[in-house]
Amino acid sequence: MFVAMNRLTVRDDYVERFEHLFRSRAREVDREEGFIDVKILRPTQAGKPYIVMSFWEREADFQRWVSSGAYTKGHNRAFADMHEARETGGPMPMSSDMETFEVFAE
Amino acid sequence: MFVAMNRLTVRDDYVERFEHLFRSRAREVDREEGFIDVKILRPTQAGKPYIVMSFWEREADFQRWVSSGAYTKGHNRAFADMHEARETGGPMPMSSDMETFEVFAE
Repeated sequence: MFVAMNRLTVRDDYVERFEHLFRSRAREVDREEGFIDVKILRPTQAGKPYIVMSFWEREADFQRWVSSGAYTKGHNRAFADMHEARETGGPMPMSSDMETFEVFAE
Repeated sequence: MFVAMNRLTVRDDYVERFEHLFRSRAREVDREEGFIDVKILRPTQAGKPYIVMSFWEREADFQRWVSSGAYTKGHNRAFADMHEARETGGPMPMSSDMETFEVFAE
């Protein structure tokens, strides 16, 4: 099993919008081949990032989704927020750091 | 749902032993109240840590387990390896950084 964890540092004034986007997600990724599960994690310690964690049968399944139009479409609201920040010269609402893993024991 | 992620930086010469310990774990934690799941993750990127990730109904379930004799007993082989490194003045086989989260969307 392959695990992708996106560590997202979210600005305080974007947290409410960030959580809303995930709570109201379209669930299109759930129908992708090889998709197993997704969990979105809120830190319980100060100064730690949010984590978007998805589980896949194989890394290739994840990479195919990332390269697909479905990925772009699934992130269009967040991408629009980032685009607006760039256009207006405002602070970026979040920054990300992708980490990837294989499950070797359960 | 509560998620505890222990980020473990493992020395190259301890990786084989580290993976063996988890593959042969006693599975005692699986019977703890509030325990849901555990996954042990190997990084697929250079320079990234292993992650031991456990899922619990509530944070209190995790904290009770950490404070219990079962936790100490469940880690006795790794703790012995760390103790030996300290006694002999050798390099520590690993270092850890615990991060904790709440699942707010799936």
